[in-house]
Amino acid sequence: MSTDTNADADDESTSKCGASSTDTEAETSSSESKCGASSNETDDSSSSKCGASSSSDSSSSSSCGASGSDDDSGSNEKEVGATIEDFDAEPGQLIAVGLGPGHPEGMTERAKTALLEADHIVGYTTYIELIPDEITEKADEIYDTPMCGEVSRTEESIDRALAGNDVAIVGSGDPNVYALAGLALEILESKGATASMVDFDVVPGVPAAQSCAARLGAPLVNDTVSVSLSDHLVPMPEIESRLHSVASENFTITIYNPWSRKRRENFQKACEILLTHRDPDTPVGIVHGAGREDEQVMITELAELEDLGESEIIDMTTTIVVGTEDTYVWDDRMVTPRGYETKYDY
Amino acid sequence: MSTDTNADADDESTSKCGASSTDTEAETSSSESKCGASSNETDDSSSSKCGASSSSDSSSSSSCGASGSDDDSGSNEKEVGATIEDFDAEPGQLIAVGLGPGHPEGMTERAKTALLEADHIVGYTTYIELIPDEITEKADEIYDTPMCGEVSRTEESIDRALAGNDVAIVGSGDPNVYALAGLALEILESKGATASMVDFDVVPGVPAAQSCAARLGAPLVNDTVSVSLSDHLVPMPEIESRLHSVASENFTITIYNPWSRKRRENFQKACEILLTHRDPDTPVGIVHGAGREDEQVMITELAELEDLGESEIIDMTTTIVVGTEDTYVWDDRMVTPRGYETKYDY
Repeated sequence: MSTDTNADADDESTSKCGASSTDTEAETSSSESKCGASSNETDDSSSSKCGASSSSDSSSSSSCGASGSDDDSGSNEKEVGATIEDFDAEPGQLIAVGLGPGHPEGMTERAKTALLEADHIVGYTTYIELIPDEITEKADEIYDTPMCGEVSRTEESIDRALAGNDVAIVGSGDPNVYALAGLALEILESKGATASMVDFDVVPGVPAAQSCAARLGAPLVNDTVSVSLSDHLVPMPEIESRLHSVASENFTITIYNPWSRKRRENFQKACEILLTHRDPDTPVGIVHGAGREDEQVMITELAELEDLGESEIIDMTTTIVVGTEDTYVWDDRMVTPRGYETKYDY
Repeated sequence: MSTDTNADADDESTSKCGASSTDTEAETSSSESKCGASSNETDDSSSSKCGASSSSDSSSSSSCGASGSDDDSGSNEKEVGATIEDFDAEPGQLIAVGLGPGHPEGMTERAKTALLEADHIVGYTTYIELIPDEITEKADEIYDTPMCGEVSRTEESIDRALAGNDVAIVGSGDPNVYALAGLALEILESKGATASMVDFDVVPGVPAAQSCAARLGAPLVNDTVSVSLSDHLVPMPEIESRLHSVASENFTITIYNPWSRKRRENFQKACEILLTHRDPDTPVGIVHGAGREDEQVMITELAELEDLGESEIIDMTTTIVVGTEDTYVWDDRMVTPRGYETKYDY
């Protein structure tokens, strides 16, 4: 449940695939709908039209969001389905919507409105499950896939928009934070489409760094950085170099995707780098599943961090906030002074 | 109106003080209410109780949120009013609430609920004006002050909570982003109070970086940093050193408080530093008043940035996003590739 805390596509690529709990639903709804690239422009716009990629009726296969491919998720990730030439329809709108921390109270009004107005809602199963039923029930179709299908799922959302549906592609947090807003634009381009064609828009949400900082107190009130330890898409040497550069300055450092079985070494290396620049007693906040049922919050010291990598509180769903040299812990809160104390007496 | 985009206390300290449009209101409501440190615990909790700092009835003076001081804003900023000993009441709750970009649709449900449940809502006048009337009308008191009163206003909110009121102190964006969550904790400590005593909580909001990135496309989907160019609380040499360190790595750089009459040089220096590490044609997104009436969005190149400092689009209410060496502009959107193209064909 708490993978959504990070709104991070990398989360997905780190876990094995598997049929999602609601795939059957998606399949049913999808197979009920008119499919095919050449959907009729005169169709009632509220009627459901699948994208070209759905013409083989495989859009709702549970093979990790295969976008019109009958291959397994491993290889369909490397294929591209339809291009703009395959669509005759007047394109619908494509909106990337950030759900925030995950609980419905953390969503903005604008996010709710965008989801209510969408014909199709597309997303990683865990994120879709975060959306209140009263919203998902109003959609013509919900297309959700389990982990590791971010590319094919994003393509699917684009195909559905190009086929004339108003589509919302959702993620938790903010669509700009290690999330799919950029991938959507890249795939639109690769299809010969444009952002304007689908009136592409982004509805921002509360990022994991903010949700977690709120639970920790006030650790982020000065200059901050966000670094992901996932080397799925960024080479580890680059990540290490970035960590060195910011740890030597007085930034608060928010770490996304800190640990996975495959990436123990990344976490260990990051802890080493941080310790070469910051004191062992530097306050570190750890938040697992901010605001969720399985939430865990811990404030510790940098020297303790590496060992905690092997504990359940740190996994790909955890966000870690490493304090500055000025950050202190008071009454179970992390406080990074903004600097007022240098100007005012209080 | 758009200063709120940055949720940044620094905004306030850069502008001259002056009576706010609603000070009279605040004065009226405040003078109507029972004041004094020794407010009676058996009072109806819904009745309004001022903090110790209000006992001289100056809490609503418009001298920049003077907290119990009769001095001018300049010097009252350097004074501390009541300490925990001055309060007999059972403390109320103190919540720092992030309003997000400013328009009501950008608020989370949780923020609305927190404001509706508060007896008193305290904030910078511009932020208070962003809150829908149906919410402010339900509060017993609104205490707002114009720019430059962040310390005394924050103290006022704490005094009111210690006096037994449930208080929400508001800002736009997120309370952890260059905002008052940390100052609230620092002042609580200076008063001999604790965070637990007022059940201190933070309700996160959508930060300016996210609101602005959404308007620009997808510039922030990789590792990012936020740097404020305000040297009111952080010495400029530190800011310069931070800029050098992150500009030499491939971070997207979000710049808060980029320009004010007093700080032309900071902006010029920042542009010089960025140009020493990044190509002149690096895409730069400029958003003034994201999602507001006076919103302006521009995508330009790093080489053009310094000259734009003198134009109206860049002031303390503007957020600037400097792309990485991979960021490109496509169909009027800024796109920072996450790295999928290295792994997938599309």
